[in-house]
Amino acid sequence: MRLIRLGEPGTERPAVLDDDDRAFDLTPVTRDIDGGFLAEDGIARARAALAAGELPALETAGLRTGAPVARPGAVLCIGQNYAAHAAESGDAPPKQPVVFFKTPNTVVGPYDDVLIPRGAEKTDWEVELAVVIGRRARYLDSPEEALAHVAGYAVSNDVSERAFQIEESGGQWSKGKCCETFNPLGPWLVPAGEVGDPQRLGLRSFVNGEPRQDSSTADMIFSVAFLVHHLSQYLVLEPGDVVNTGTPQGVALSGRHPYLAPGDVMELEIDGLGAQRQELGKA
Amino acid sequence: MRLIRLGEPGTERPAVLDDDDRAFDLTPVTRDIDGGFLAEDGIARARAALAAGELPALETAGLRTGAPVARPGAVLCIGQNYAAHAAESGDAPPKQPVVFFKTPNTVVGPYDDVLIPRGAEKTDWEVELAVVIGRRARYLDSPEEALAHVAGYAVSNDVSERAFQIEESGGQWSKGKCCETFNPLGPWLVPAGEVGDPQRLGLRSFVNGEPRQDSSTADMIFSVAFLVHHLSQYLVLEPGDVVNTGTPQGVALSGRHPYLAPGDVMELEIDGLGAQRQELGKA
Repeated sequence: MRLIRLGEPGTERPAVLDDDDRAFDLTPVTRDIDGGFLAEDGIARARAALAAGELPALETAGLRTGAPVARPGAVLCIGQNYAAHAAESGDAPPKQPVVFFKTPNTVVGPYDDVLIPRGAEKTDWEVELAVVIGRRARYLDSPEEALAHVAGYAVSNDVSERAFQIEESGGQWSKGKCCETFNPLGPWLVPAGEVGDPQRLGLRSFVNGEPRQDSSTADMIFSVAFLVHHLSQYLVLEPGDVVNTGTPQGVALSGRHPYLAPGDVMELEIDGLGAQRQELGKA
Repeated sequence: MRLIRLGEPGTERPAVLDDDDRAFDLTPVTRDIDGGFLAEDGIARARAALAAGELPALETAGLRTGAPVARPGAVLCIGQNYAAHAAESGDAPPKQPVVFFKTPNTVVGPYDDVLIPRGAEKTDWEVELAVVIGRRARYLDSPEEALAHVAGYAVSNDVSERAFQIEESGGQWSKGKCCETFNPLGPWLVPAGEVGDPQRLGLRSFVNGEPRQDSSTADMIFSVAFLVHHLSQYLVLEPGDVVNTGTPQGVALSGRHPYLAPGDVMELEIDGLGAQRQELGKA
């Protein structure tokens, strides 16, 4: 079972897909897929309702796919969590997780257009494993208990404007991370129990059909369990929060590929979590 | 007229104070003081209802004061926006605004306890002018039109843990800015029209009654109008968002004062915006 939100921005309807890719309306169980739903064992209730045949079939033809989580309270990002990406960025691997933020209003659907900001010349892609928090996490005792606080996983594109991030920022990266449409998320929220080990997922990106990133979450410096435990020592993670866990090598910042231009097409995929596709437009 | 939220965390009731400090229940006008209220000319409606005598008097004795804005979608912070504070931090004044974030769940009431995080030894105060956004701001044409997007102003304490911010962060400051209770806000949201020029407000902080910061928003490097216009070129500001506009010199990071310890008391004030008082506890 995968969770999905379908409809126009701001009025998406919650739904689930079964193992045969059939869609079912989730509104008998919840008004939306959000922090409150996740905190109240919503995924288990959705699964039970699906198994019991209590969810009406849903015709999805022509419906836009939104981000699979509504209104995250925070979008946290981990910087340089793959050693080869730190190297292509000109940095040593971090000794501790590096944390920065995107504003939650950057989150859009997985097939929505991504807008190149006005005055921007260095817009870049970043395929990432997104962790969606399911239970409040505050001062967790150990990484071992961290994964029980994860509701599920999704594909995330941590779109970045490198001049805004590095040259115009005074060193604080978020300035190049928060532009409108800069966080395509989805298509699905896949429950943690169906993903299994989050550290063995292949993740790839393509621009105009050409491969760019091709790596595995096995190459993360800091694992999902390590990150959730670590973050909980510095802040309180809330249900519905999204943690983008860092991107592997193969971005334009490396100098090996051109930055994005209007009309380009980004495609991103993670094993078991589905695929995204965005066309670049202009803000 | 000032806006205020009274009651226990999560169940605060919206209210207004008139010029004689009498409190009136604002629930006939709105369920809460949030982005939606501000975007829909809520302040003007509150003022009209108060003037028309349509708001019931409210007994405030014993009621906790919450943050004057519920659930900001984003809490933006401007770093080193006073030259003397940049200098005491060991840095040159920034050439462009430096932007970082606090998680919105750091926002607490102006008299709530502030918790020193576990393992922290460098917890610090920062009195700041908070700007509360009233209208969506995206690619504003000029600083001149920026202030029309500001709903009002409040006192903010951008509490910071310097080891988390600087030594354990890989250079991205937010790690020392997002700890639980780290953003006391209020007591009031004062409508922009009643504040007038935001660049001539004295702001001060005290620890255990001893003066620490004593400056004026006239000393900001980048004015409120400049900041709101500038930010709108990089991201979309939403109604209810909070922008902490930077702190003046006089923090513990300077080396001239000790960091905070449990039992210490912080007091902060800005001309016309009221005063805060927090006792330090332990997380």
